[in-house]
Amino acid sequence: MTALASDAHRGRNRAGDRDTAVVLGLDVGGSSVKHLLARADSSMSEPPTPLARGRNATPISAPAEALAAIAETIRGDRALARLVLSIPGIVDEENGVVIRSANIPALDGSPLGSQLETALGVPVDVINDGHAAAVAEASWGAGAGIDDVFVLALGTGIAGAHVIDGRVVTGAHGSAGELGHITIDPLGRACSCGRRGCLETIIGAPALRDAWTEVGGRGGPEALFEAFAQGDGAATAIVRRASSALAEAILTLCAVVDPGGIVIGGGLAQAPHHLVTLAERYVRERATFHRVPPIVPATLGGWAGANGTVLTALRRQRVAG
Amino acid sequence: MTALASDAHRGRNRAGDRDTAVVLGLDVGGSSVKHLLARADSSMSEPPTPLARGRNATPISAPAEALAAIAETIRGDRALARLVLSIPGIVDEENGVVIRSANIPALDGSPLGSQLETALGVPVDVINDGHAAAVAEASWGAGAGIDDVFVLALGTGIAGAHVIDGRVVTGAHGSAGELGHITIDPLGRACSCGRRGCLETIIGAPALRDAWTEVGGRGGPEALFEAFAQGDGAATAIVRRASSALAEAILTLCAVVDPGGIVIGGGLAQAPHHLVTLAERYVRERATFHRVPPIVPATLGGWAGANGTVLTALRRQRVAG
Ligand SMILES: [Zn+2]
Ligand SMILES: [Zn+2]
Repeated sequence: MTALASDAHRGRNRAGDRDTAVVLGLDVGGSSVKHLLARADSSMSEPPTPLARGRNATPISAPAEALAAIAETIRGDRALARLVLSIPGIVDEENGVVIRSANIPALDGSPLGSQLETALGVPVDVINDGHAAAVAEASWGAGAGIDDVFVLALGTGIAGAHVIDGRVVTGAHGSAGELGHITIDPLGRACSCGRRGCLETIIGAPALRDAWTEVGGRGGPEALFEAFAQGDGAATAIVRRASSALAEAILTLCAVVDPGGIVIGGGLAQAPHHLVTLAERYVRERATFHRVPPIVPATLGGWAGANGTVLTALRRQRVAG
Repeated sequence: MTALASDAHRGRNRAGDRDTAVVLGLDVGGSSVKHLLARADSSMSEPPTPLARGRNATPISAPAEALAAIAETIRGDRALARLVLSIPGIVDEENGVVIRSANIPALDGSPLGSQLETALGVPVDVINDGHAAAVAEASWGAGAGIDDVFVLALGTGIAGAHVIDGRVVTGAHGSAGELGHITIDPLGRACSCGRRGCLETIIGAPALRDAWTEVGGRGGPEALFEAFAQGDGAATAIVRRASSALAEAILTLCAVVDPGGIVIGGGLAQAPHHLVTLAERYVRERATFHRVPPIVPATLGGWAGANGTVLTALRRQRVAG
């Protein structure tokens, strides 16, 4: 839906909605804060039609105050029932504290949840952005209808989240799903995590860029995929190797976790989905005892995280109410 | 507890127990059927003092009838509330059907649960033996007090089960936990599963035996561990390589599943626990971002499975009651 359509829709419903409690989701990204506003009584079985949808620049200084101001503006005179924010980085979701944010150093260590609760007078949850996108893809995106979905995001890093019944399985210390750092090539390149040959060293965006540059290619992963589509030999070798590594990680995932579906999103998995298509083929070719579930591209794109904040708000609202 | 102590205890309580409902667990192994009988109102927070404990030879022909007869004899004139059996092999736990048993071909495909329900007139559950041992180790053994435990059994094969709140996380198709078949050495030996370089090809009992024989060693894994303890160079190399492979599998497990504890049992993990001790050291040396939980040897030994059947019976009895 375009911003225009959203505004039109909002205008049409404004009178009727003024007395209806709403939930607000803010997906705080590196450059922009996306927002989605929905009725608090929206169905959770599909994405609600947003009452408002749009984006603001991400505040770098005094982010808590700026995010409160954004929320106040969007809520207007509606009765806000709950706010959920997603933050890129490490989040103590239990206590609403940002441990370390990837893009907004001013948030590091801040009790963002309680700060915004005080400012707005409503319950506020803070969740990890990858978790937000994963629950949305699992429930409203490519994983809709499957109870048990592992969602992978392929980008600069590789993030994974196992979603069962709409909830992320976080692990005992909140760090499950790190499929990007399982060893694929024990003799491979050094990884940012301090180990060697992790999936990320083969399929992460920087790894693809480096491999492409080394063979004289120009541009980043997009140019690589374009050359691959045109049959370029060097590009084919790189894309095959990356897809093969992804396939190995998926086979490990099937052996250990046995998910009911695998959804692959992120910048590197966008249409025409070369990595996903090829990895899926390799997985099926190499599987032996493994129970290979559907392996499909994500469908919510850049709005997955914002949808996940709304979904989380609706769920917690139900539990609280 | 020795058989003698068990008998003495049983004698002492017999009069008082006669009117108390009991649950029976049968751990059906390759050569013997172990049984544990406990009061149906036993606490689930620790292993109950058994009313009876012992073993019979595993029946190969007409196993359903023979198992019913064993259960009848043990129950005597007590009110049996529930029977749980553990079977080595693939079990449809939902329907109480043995899909394929490792040691008793006559059971393959049999609806053992309903056969015994008809024979005994009580609810009967059939579970996988590895799952039985895992829930017992997690709740009553080395994992007691930890909510979220991954239990590994090192033997001819490598079995794994993730136990959360006393229940095995089976995965979408019932095949989660196959840590024995994740790839450790992409260039390694062919595995029984049809792939190459799986953990089992390095640390399974046959793999250890082969490696030991190849360097001129005599005997199986026990002799290998003995030679290792005495400082034999070739034995040291083999045990280190196996422990290293296990450490890599555990690092993958920590990255993907993030368990709160790891319990390692099975024939290859018995005291003096060389593989566990060494693998634990390698994991701690190699971990970077990983949250490494306690890694400890199993404590229930050969009675883990039988304890797991009783634990399962007590739990299902609670739910049903
Ligand atoms: Zn890494
Ligand atoms: Zn294998």
